Amino acid sequence: MAGAVGQGGDSGIDAAAASVALEVVDAWWRAANYLSVGQIYLMDDPLLDEPLTPEHIKPRLLGHWGTSPGLSLVYAHLNRAIVERGTPTLYVCGPGHGGPAMVANTWLDGTYSELFPTVTADREGMRRLFRQFSFPGGIPSHAAPETPGSINEGGELGYSLMHAYGAALDNPGLVVACVIGDGEAETGPLAASWRAHAFLNPVTDGAVLPILHLNGYKIANPTLLARIPESELVEFLRGNGYEPLLVTGGFDDEDHLAVHARMADAIDVAYERLADIRADAAAGAFHRRPPRWPAIVLRTPKGWTGPGVVDGVQVEGTFHAHQVPLAGVRENTEHLAMLEAWLRSYRPEELFDADGRPVPELDALRPRGDLRMSATPVANGGIVRPLVLPDSAPFAVEVDPGARGASGEATSVFARWLAELMRDNPDDMRLFGPDEVLSNRLGAVFDVTDRAWAAEVRPLDEHLARSGSVIEALSEHLMQGLLEGYLLTGRHGLITSYEAFVHIVDSMFNQHAKWLESANDVAWRGDVASLNYLLSSHVWRQDHNGFSHQDPGFLNVVVNKQAAVVRVYLPPDANTLLAVARHVFDTQNRVNVVVAGKQPHPQWLTAEEAEAHVTAGLGVWAWAGSEPGFDAVDPAASVPDVVLACAGDVPTLETIAAAQLLRDRLPGLAVRVVNVVDLMRLQDPSHHPHGLPDREFDAIFTRASPVIFAFHGYPSLIHQLAYRRTNHKNLHVRGFIERGTTTTPFDMVHLNDLDRYRLALDAVRRVPGLAGEPGIAEIADEWHAARAVARDHAYEHGEDPEWITGWEFSAG
Amino acid sequence: MAGAVGQGGDSGIDAAAASVALEVVDAWWRAANYLSVGQIYLMDDPLLDEPLTPEHIKPRLLGHWGTSPGLSLVYAHLNRAIVERGTPTLYVCGPGHGGPAMVANTWLDGTYSELFPTVTADREGMRRLFRQFSFPGGIPSHAAPETPGSINEGGELGYSLMHAYGAALDNPGLVVACVIGDGEAETGPLAASWRAHAFLNPVTDGAVLPILHLNGYKIANPTLLARIPESELVEFLRGNGYEPLLVTGGFDDEDHLAVHARMADAIDVAYERLADIRADAAAGAFHRRPPRWPAIVLRTPKGWTGPGVVDGVQVEGTFHAHQVPLAGVRENTEHLAMLEAWLRSYRPEELFDADGRPVPELDALRPRGDLRMSATPVANGGIVRPLVLPDSAPFAVEVDPGARGASGEATSVFARWLAELMRDNPDDMRLFGPDEVLSNRLGAVFDVTDRAWAAEVRPLDEHLARSGSVIEALSEHLMQGLLEGYLLTGRHGLITSYEAFVHIVDSMFNQHAKWLESANDVAWRGDVASLNYLLSSHVWRQDHNGFSHQDPGFLNVVVNKQAAVVRVYLPPDANTLLAVARHVFDTQNRVNVVVAGKQPHPQWLTAEEAEAHVTAGLGVWAWAGSEPGFDAVDPAASVPDVVLACAGDVPTLETIAAAQLLRDRLPGLAVRVVNVVDLMRLQDPSHHPHGLPDREFDAIFTRASPVIFAFHGYPSLIHQLAYRRTNHKNLHVRGFIERGTTTTPFDMVHLNDLDRYRLALDAVRRVPGLAGEPGIAEIADEWHAARAVARDHAYEHGEDPEWITGWEFSAG
Repeated sequence: MAGAVGQGGDSGIDAAAASVALEVVDAWWRAANYLSVGQIYLMDDPLLDEPLTPEHIKPRLLGHWGTSPGLSLVYAHLNRAIVERGTPTLYVCGPGHGGPAMVANTWLDGTYSELFPTVTADREGMRRLFRQFSFPGGIPSHAAPETPGSINEGGELGYSLMHAYGAALDNPGLVVACVIGDGEAETGPLAASWRAHAFLNPVTDGAVLPILHLNGYKIANPTLLARIPESELVEFLRGNGYEPLLVTGGFDDEDHLAVHARMADAIDVAYERLADIRADAAAGAFHRRPPRWPAIVLRTPKGWTGPGVVDGVQVEGTFHAHQVPLAGVRENTEHLAMLEAWLRSYRPEELFDADGRPVPELDALRPRGDLRMSATPVANGGIVRPLVLPDSAPFAVEVDPGARGASGEATSVFARWLAELMRDNPDDMRLFGPDEVLSNRLGAVFDVTDRAWAAEVRPLDEHLARSGSVIEALSEHLMQGLLEGYLLTGRHGLITSYEAFVHIVDSMFNQHAKWLESANDVAWRGDVASLNYLLSSHVWRQDHNGFSHQDPGFLNVVVNKQAAVVRVYLPPDANTLLAVARHVFDTQNRVNVVVAGKQPHPQWLTAEEAEAHVTAGLGVWAWAGSEPGFDAVDPAASVPDVVLACAGDVPTLETIAAAQLLRDRLPGLAVRVVNVVDLMRLQDPSHHPHGLPDREFDAIFTRASPVIFAFHGYPSLIHQLAYRRTNHKNLHVRGFIERGTTTTPFDMVHLNDLDRYRLALDAVRRVPGLAGEPGIAEIADEWHAARAVARDHAYEHGEDPEWITGWEFSAG
Repeated sequence: MAGAVGQGGDSGIDAAAASVALEVVDAWWRAANYLSVGQIYLMDDPLLDEPLTPEHIKPRLLGHWGTSPGLSLVYAHLNRAIVERGTPTLYVCGPGHGGPAMVANTWLDGTYSELFPTVTADREGMRRLFRQFSFPGGIPSHAAPETPGSINEGGELGYSLMHAYGAALDNPGLVVACVIGDGEAETGPLAASWRAHAFLNPVTDGAVLPILHLNGYKIANPTLLARIPESELVEFLRGNGYEPLLVTGGFDDEDHLAVHARMADAIDVAYERLADIRADAAAGAFHRRPPRWPAIVLRTPKGWTGPGVVDGVQVEGTFHAHQVPLAGVRENTEHLAMLEAWLRSYRPEELFDADGRPVPELDALRPRGDLRMSATPVANGGIVRPLVLPDSAPFAVEVDPGARGASGEATSVFARWLAELMRDNPDDMRLFGPDEVLSNRLGAVFDVTDRAWAAEVRPLDEHLARSGSVIEALSEHLMQGLLEGYLLTGRHGLITSYEAFVHIVDSMFNQHAKWLESANDVAWRGDVASLNYLLSSHVWRQDHNGFSHQDPGFLNVVVNKQAAVVRVYLPPDANTLLAVARHVFDTQNRVNVVVAGKQPHPQWLTAEEAEAHVTAGLGVWAWAGSEPGFDAVDPAASVPDVVLACAGDVPTLETIAAAQLLRDRLPGLAVRVVNVVDLMRLQDPSHHPHGLPDREFDAIFTRASPVIFAFHGYPSLIHQLAYRRTNHKNLHVRGFIERGTTTTPFDMVHLNDLDRYRLALDAVRRVPGLAGEPGIAEIADEWHAARAVARDHAYEHGEDPEWITGWEFSAG
């Protein structure tokens, strides 16, 4: 259970009585700093048994020293709090490029050697620890999936605080300590995260302790928050709902123990306040007003304890300490001597025994078992509990196979199943939306839960409560980041967005996909639930929002990631969406992107057909075509004159209407209709695990008949996926070609050459031997008429003519 | 000149003496509200000459009422300030989906009828104004390029305040009033923008007046900032460097004139403070400390003055007022009556004469000429002054055509020219970077300018000053948004980013491209300078940052936009980068993406060759190949056995090395090397204006020889661009296939099958008749050896072996 995280094993009560001397905290800190410097510089001689020579030094000096001492200071003090209090704590490291520090502390914790047995807790292990860092065949220079206890990659900055809040949700009793670099604090996503406590319930959720680390500099610039008056900084944090605790230290050669004393005080006050907040909330205070959360501001010099002046340039306390303070160690004997003095300044002989093992005195600061931040199952353990997946049958819409095409709203239907899913999984399934849950027609979830809201609630508010499984704020970044934090700590969720605006989180998607790609190679990480997107309010139905809301390009971003982790589904109707949904919530370690419409739209498949269709991923819809002798078991037994393929609800409607048109006007033409719901089926099986084998692909798409493919997104994507297929040269794709405006649905497909007439003409013009058929001229005439008549009607009346809106499918 | 914006024409001094009665402000506001409601609902009967009937009502009711009255309130009061003070003011409308309000006010200004002559300032014009809104063939429902005076699209929220600050830069004397919706205020980009005054100089730049409009609700939720205690909100704004002025009104049927009085006071105080700040700064105060800027918090009911209760549901003052408060007007006679009562509540008979013209009393609130916010050349006028483009010849690197391949750093070389460009254009050319200007090796610009920095400056700081043309903060969003605001107000600029992290602004790029696409169709908008990206620290050289920093996918996002506005350049060396740069800064209305390396790298082309190469966009590098009888004037005169094509600096190096390998091992093989610098040359000329005509394309890439294309990005992009070309079936692309880690440069190309051996083998395996040639086996052996030896060497020594790092080009 989520609430018990980190309290099992041999940790807990007996550890909570101890009190740790600050000298031990300092020793841990020195050890972590020593190990950080060692990782950046040393290939050998980890314990300085002999004077350093150029051969001991790595040929390429890579890594970030500047932030590392601050990260280790926090780590040591959190360890102290955990040891003294037994409070399960997760460390989210915003300045994750300070990888050396995070790795150093996890090695001191003992966790690193447990998870990577060749990196032992001794001299040889230390040598390997140093050598592997930011080294070919080794480990990344950032906190990464390879870093025990981490759920936050340190490369692209901005997401630490949202990951922290996501981790805290539904993890009562957990403290998520989140170090935020003052560089990262300038990013938009981080700036939007400060208020995420507005969704936190102090009783049923954990707590987040932001630790804003002001070391004053980014790569090459001072940071904004370090250069404003302290009074303004305090107002900023108070204005975001926090009560700041200020710790400044390490300047002007201040004694380190004095800094430790202040930091220990701040941590103690923070943990006590968090406990008080929880207790007060449990006693009812939270229902009256939200708490004011503690936050620590830690101001220390960048590169603290590193070289002061190098070659006449001040390094410690400036941006020159950001990466490698001594750059010429291999060539410059003075630099080499400075490095050795720097390493020896930590007095390694007091910290490691003759075999390189951390001295027993450090044991006092090492939490036991799962309480170690590097060993917490919250970060490393994977899915806490599998989802209970309700049956979707009761939610399916009635479709009569003899009279297909009745109207239904896909996302509304899905929402009723989603409500059941959330009812069945109240503690570990959440829905996140940028104020678009209702707009995307998912309001049925409010029959079973509410939106979590810690701020003021007023009498007229709807579905706002102190507890609830839905979270909404107008920030795609924040919603995505909370969901990522929630998933990476073992829970389940869904994010919904307008299709166009999911581009806002392209880069977050990229980084999450990369995390999954890398984590797949980390044996000790548990599986995590897939990140599921439901994109609605899509490109074809932005009737009043227009051009700025018309962009289906997220799919292009998605398919560039490794095939092992990405899936794209385009269910054409409600029952197919239900089947897709039930499938994607049952997957792990992936990103599933589902695009579905919210508007009234024809329904095609029965629940059983939809289930089979999703299992197959694509298939022939014989009832929509006109192919004599078609055999569903052996599609290759017949060869149609033309294949009309489609993916997406609007293209599917136009395709079916085009097939109907062809049936009417060219009754002899053998037309096969293929619908694709699992887009990756199109890709070569050597490129994607869902790729359909060539033989099956050829049987369905034929080896030589023209294929007119009506696609939801940019046409190039279909070519990109299918270009290795036998029949690719006959594949002609229509899709969104960046023509949009405020207009009617038919005008949109028409503008982009995706309307039924255009598709029908595409088809007949590519079938040999049809030239001169009167039906072709009829369709062409209809097309020309439709263009003019529909446009005129729309311009005159503001809506499509009745022959479009009233079109009905007939099985012919 | 930038400083004179809005002060020319018949505006200015004589207007500044007038004082406007609040009754006139209220009348303007009522008129704007009337016109807003009319746009949402009415197809006819604009002046309510007859009782409303269903036929007068649009069949589809689309648009956003909720925010509109607040936007018009601000507009009216800003008009008052402009009329009374003569201060040039730009209105940036964050809640731009309140398009009806913005359009209404511009029509009242008279500007709309001047720019759209059919929408006259009379009854028939009003009818057209109403009918066209969010109507097929009409105008978008958001503030958009079609909206006079707007530089901010109202669809995707979050960018208003950064656009405002970008507009204020180098526009001394200008006030940019920026209305921020409380929904938008939840986004990350907006949250990161509050501190953008850190880059503003009150003397040489204009000022931004944020007006945070708390109407309390988003689409379907309350907003966070509206539900925190007012004291906390004040702390938040003070903590961001502002002095808030609070205006709350419109609740509990408060008299409107009382609200106007408070709003007028706040606006007066704000304008006076801004003038004081400017004067104080000019007198020297700014050099001591940054000012505290005024900001207005305007709290009014959502949908204020609209229907109160509809069908028993409270609408005014709740999220139910967000879009169309009365949804059933055509069918429901009660709704219809409510609409008519609502419209008549504004007393249109007092506001418009019998012909529908605004009554003369409103003239008092209409600024003259260019001082109208809807007519300001700042927003509508296009480029203020063309760039002075320095000659690039003095900055070119020496390349000896007889001994190509000496080492140079492309971005460092470019930076020296960029410095000259910035020196020559000190008032209207800016460089924006997310703390990556130095890291991307552009530090030479600091020889001529500094980073603008209004916060504390300390003695050890480098290149920070109260004035400077470089702006850096660790937010790609903020940098992009400032640049957009700067460009859309007629100036010039460059943004630099790490290649992977430019994905952070994918969606901003999309929206800017869409703006340009739409603006191309708006006759009265002036041209704007292209948005230029310099992407460096690219996918192939992330030796220590590893996988999170390896992503070339921005190019895929870019090419999905309309061909008229996007260009992609991949200069393979320094002189080519110089030639590209000189070209892109001379273009308008586009987005130019330039990807270039910052590491030491072989240099290939002389300055003259580079210029010719960029003009051609692609070309044969005969000196790198081995094709007997090649004729540069007529490439079709010879047909090589194989074409080695390349785009990007690292792929170019590997391609040239592969060609050299083939020359050595298979001396009889005719190899043609083609380098592509202008990627869009590959696309069909019917799809892109830069597309090479098929005949020329076939002459260079041949009609049937195998083409091995080594590409900087994802391979699919080359197929996407070239799939219509004659020889596409023989095109084999290597590129980044999402395999990355912390490793050496050679290991990276090797991991992704892009190394020289792999390319050479790709080539020979596709040339018929070569089987059994001993040279092939030699290359295969070398490849296998290189794999093992290079990997072993890297794992052992942390760097590539000398036979890679020391490779030298020989012309053979």
